[in-house]
Amino acid sequence: MNTPKLLVIGGVAAGASFAARARRLCEGAEIMIIERGPDVSFANCGLPYYVGGEIAARDALAVQTPATLQGMLNLDVRTHCEAVRIDRANKRVEIRHVDSGASEWQSYDTLMLAPGASPLRPPIPGIDDPRILTLRNLQDMDRIAAATETGMRAVVIGAGFIGLEMTEQLHRKGLSVQLVELQQQVFPQLDGPMTALLESELRHNDVGVTLGDGVARFESGEDIVRCHLNSGKVLDADMVILSIGVKPDTDLAAAAGLQLGPRGHIVVDEFQRTSDPCIYAAGDAVETADRVLESKVVVPMGGPANRQGRVAADHVFLGNKSRPYPGSLGTAIVRVFNVAAGITGWSEKRLRAAGRAYETVTVNDHQHATYYPGAKPLTLKVLWEPESGRLLGAQASGFEGIDKRLDVLATAILAGMTVEDLCHLELAYAPPFGAAKDAINLAGFAACNRRDGLVKHTTELPTDPQVQVVDVRPKPLAEAFPAPGKAINIPFPTLRANLGKLDPARPVITLCAFGKMSYFAARVLAQNGFDVTSFSGGLKANVDPRSPAKMPAS
Amino acid sequence: MNTPKLLVIGGVAAGASFAARARRLCEGAEIMIIERGPDVSFANCGLPYYVGGEIAARDALAVQTPATLQGMLNLDVRTHCEAVRIDRANKRVEIRHVDSGASEWQSYDTLMLAPGASPLRPPIPGIDDPRILTLRNLQDMDRIAAATETGMRAVVIGAGFIGLEMTEQLHRKGLSVQLVELQQQVFPQLDGPMTALLESELRHNDVGVTLGDGVARFESGEDIVRCHLNSGKVLDADMVILSIGVKPDTDLAAAAGLQLGPRGHIVVDEFQRTSDPCIYAAGDAVETADRVLESKVVVPMGGPANRQGRVAADHVFLGNKSRPYPGSLGTAIVRVFNVAAGITGWSEKRLRAAGRAYETVTVNDHQHATYYPGAKPLTLKVLWEPESGRLLGAQASGFEGIDKRLDVLATAILAGMTVEDLCHLELAYAPPFGAAKDAINLAGFAACNRRDGLVKHTTELPTDPQVQVVDVRPKPLAEAFPAPGKAINIPFPTLRANLGKLDPARPVITLCAFGKMSYFAARVLAQNGFDVTSFSGGLKANVDPRSPAKMPAS
Repeated sequence: MNTPKLLVIGGVAAGASFAARARRLCEGAEIMIIERGPDVSFANCGLPYYVGGEIAARDALAVQTPATLQGMLNLDVRTHCEAVRIDRANKRVEIRHVDSGASEWQSYDTLMLAPGASPLRPPIPGIDDPRILTLRNLQDMDRIAAATETGMRAVVIGAGFIGLEMTEQLHRKGLSVQLVELQQQVFPQLDGPMTALLESELRHNDVGVTLGDGVARFESGEDIVRCHLNSGKVLDADMVILSIGVKPDTDLAAAAGLQLGPRGHIVVDEFQRTSDPCIYAAGDAVETADRVLESKVVVPMGGPANRQGRVAADHVFLGNKSRPYPGSLGTAIVRVFNVAAGITGWSEKRLRAAGRAYETVTVNDHQHATYYPGAKPLTLKVLWEPESGRLLGAQASGFEGIDKRLDVLATAILAGMTVEDLCHLELAYAPPFGAAKDAINLAGFAACNRRDGLVKHTTELPTDPQVQVVDVRPKPLAEAFPAPGKAINIPFPTLRANLGKLDPARPVITLCAFGKMSYFAARVLAQNGFDVTSFSGGLKANVDPRSPAKMPAS
Repeated sequence: MNTPKLLVIGGVAAGASFAARARRLCEGAEIMIIERGPDVSFANCGLPYYVGGEIAARDALAVQTPATLQGMLNLDVRTHCEAVRIDRANKRVEIRHVDSGASEWQSYDTLMLAPGASPLRPPIPGIDDPRILTLRNLQDMDRIAAATETGMRAVVIGAGFIGLEMTEQLHRKGLSVQLVELQQQVFPQLDGPMTALLESELRHNDVGVTLGDGVARFESGEDIVRCHLNSGKVLDADMVILSIGVKPDTDLAAAAGLQLGPRGHIVVDEFQRTSDPCIYAAGDAVETADRVLESKVVVPMGGPANRQGRVAADHVFLGNKSRPYPGSLGTAIVRVFNVAAGITGWSEKRLRAAGRAYETVTVNDHQHATYYPGAKPLTLKVLWEPESGRLLGAQASGFEGIDKRLDVLATAILAGMTVEDLCHLELAYAPPFGAAKDAINLAGFAACNRRDGLVKHTTELPTDPQVQVVDVRPKPLAEAFPAPGKAINIPFPTLRANLGKLDPARPVITLCAFGKMSYFAARVLAQNGFDVTSFSGGLKANVDPRSPAKMPAS
């Protein structure tokens, strides 16, 4: 290639990254970006925050403009242009000017498809009401921002991260918000129990949360949109945000005969090449390798999109010397008011659905040393492969330091580390930042105790009346927040002196607030000949994390 | 062992962790802790924060007391007792009661030495003035807290993390503080340039900073201690904090003939066993394996101490089934007012002193997406092994998210990751938490660009007048903060149109504010036939990070 021509369809994350990297590698290339909308390289992930006013300047969201891309990268950016057909045989694409309707052909040596994904809008009766909105680009954002006013009622359908972020931001703008989710939990990527804090934070902020329910139909009134849910419940709204997922914009790729995956995503190899070696694809429209277990995965997020675009450009110009895209992990985080929760790698329900063996442990801790002011609870869940101990996934939830734990665990997963390795991660510790034994170390300890047979865990309270349930929390806590079922309260420091109260012939389950004391108690009892199991993670779920009652028990 | 007796000398981090883990593994063991002071298991790392009032409750620092250790762990804690002699042949230790002076022998099956380290107090003339204080335990802390009053003048000698934390906290209490450090930088563990922000933050808060200077002698006046520095400079103080390092308390171990390292630390194997297999040691008094390069290292920090204590207990009771201590990495962080800086693994100066080959790159970025409010600059330095690309160390400095980057990089180093691996770490991204390409990814990209020969870097401006220095920053910035020496300003977006201004026969160095635009410019020039080198890390060091002028140039 002497003066190769690169044609890029879609100029946001993946497309813009591809073009920028291509320019760094080849000053001489002709690089043209075709973008249907008026904007390129804008900050998708920031859109909700503008609606709520947290991001005040709209300009801040336009990371680059056609003019800056021309000036900085010598890119030929054609906005308001749509690619309507790929002629692979002649290596050209038909481009239609959205405003005039005129069309023209543009040739390419290399074609990059970065069309993205669009919000799902299923054929629910009444869905065409203009007050039912989705959020994909700056124009959608402007439409929502213009339509919202303090005091209005909004219904947000779908509690994934866009739904959660929109809920928070509409609330911030003074709307009263109802959030509806088909699954029995918010943030469905996580395992249910790990979303308890998110849900409680939403309710704490007077957001209505309806779980396990979906929209049967919308009824358009003059002043309101009436949302009829499957359950029969009715929610009245001045506006509705539909955030139930996205589908890849791959009609163009399909029409060109490129190989697609089972859910319509473009199939690419490790260099982001499609089934046509002159055509690359990247971003929300592709499926990639999973980085943990051999399988395909779709991760429609900004990070993978940007890095895939870069990998593709490297391969165009560096060929086999370039480095492959190693696959996606699916790291995600959401902030809702004062709490955050996130995931990296595989969840328990995904592992179960795939029929994969796993073990898991949940620990409750704080983001930094408790003796330093401002310590706040966090919960960490870690999943691993039973035989090898290799990490498969992790989830975190809490007030502060959630992104840090997820990032460390994402790194550990990508490195192929085991739960044993977590024990001796040497993390940065000064009182404002961490603890001598970080929650991640503790998760490693707990997992190893299990693997070494030092303790048996359960996450379910027994129904068998033969089992003795021993609540080892301090008496005031046990009385204020009684354990469910029939439990005998023996505060841990008095346990050794009260072994006689338990029948050594019957099994015992120990429980406490956070799962730590119950482990201590299980060790005491096991060494005294009891068949004992510790209730993992503690009764915490029954305790409002904002209640001061939780602290003395830790 | 049926009812083994464990004797633990020193009941703070390593000793208390050993005892606690031992109890979990063996209910039947007799476990006795011998502690010279009145306190066990207190929060050493919190001491400075109590002096400044940031930690208000002294009780918060007593993580455990003899009574709670008895109740929770059935430990026999003997405070105010000092171990004065180890009789290895008879497996017993002579214990002296500090108050009465009476002594007795205590036998052991297993002895754990966790004596810690004490602050250095070299024989500088005048050092015995009672106003010259060190900080090791709660009593030292009380002494300092009682001696400090708003308006007093303090001199802090030594700018390691205790010196820095004490400086901040004394300032917080309203003292006027002078900080003196023998090296030419604060926080000597880091490479000099990475401490620029810490130093600027200290000065910004009116802390006097004297570098490259030490105390020649103290002169005791009636009302003041006069500190005469090596340079002749004189600082008057109402109190002096001496924080120039620690030495291991290993007289007992030495007298018992245990093997010591070159600097007097106890030599232990991977299970924390000393040269006597019945005697273990852990914490600040031992040297351990380095986790990056084959060597011995001393890391007197809370994290390693706690985990070493645990490893030792595991080995006592689980024997060869237990997991070894993998060594120490030396992760450390300090907060000074609104900034933080830290290190993990090896620094450039340590690698240079050891004669090890390395490469390094420094990137300037922000803790999260710049379009989201509150983005603040951070600087990341990464070091790697030239041949393999394996990470050797990292340093970070900035306002927020410093602990997170250090922890991710510590994990990556421990996993044996390479700079290539950093490119595709999939970290948690939502606007409040990160960016689609995190600073760590950018460090990976920059390192790989170097490894791939896409760009030549330098960290020094040329002295050869033949070299053309091209400043590609925006004109207003280049005029407000001129580059040192003779540079021609060609703002990057105008570079392609102004290639004629440069002589293709002479080498070029490109420079900018943060090292990114200079890289872009180097790519443009290299592809146009120039012999070009990019000035790594940018001129940032010359720009006050608090100045708004820094932002437009990113």
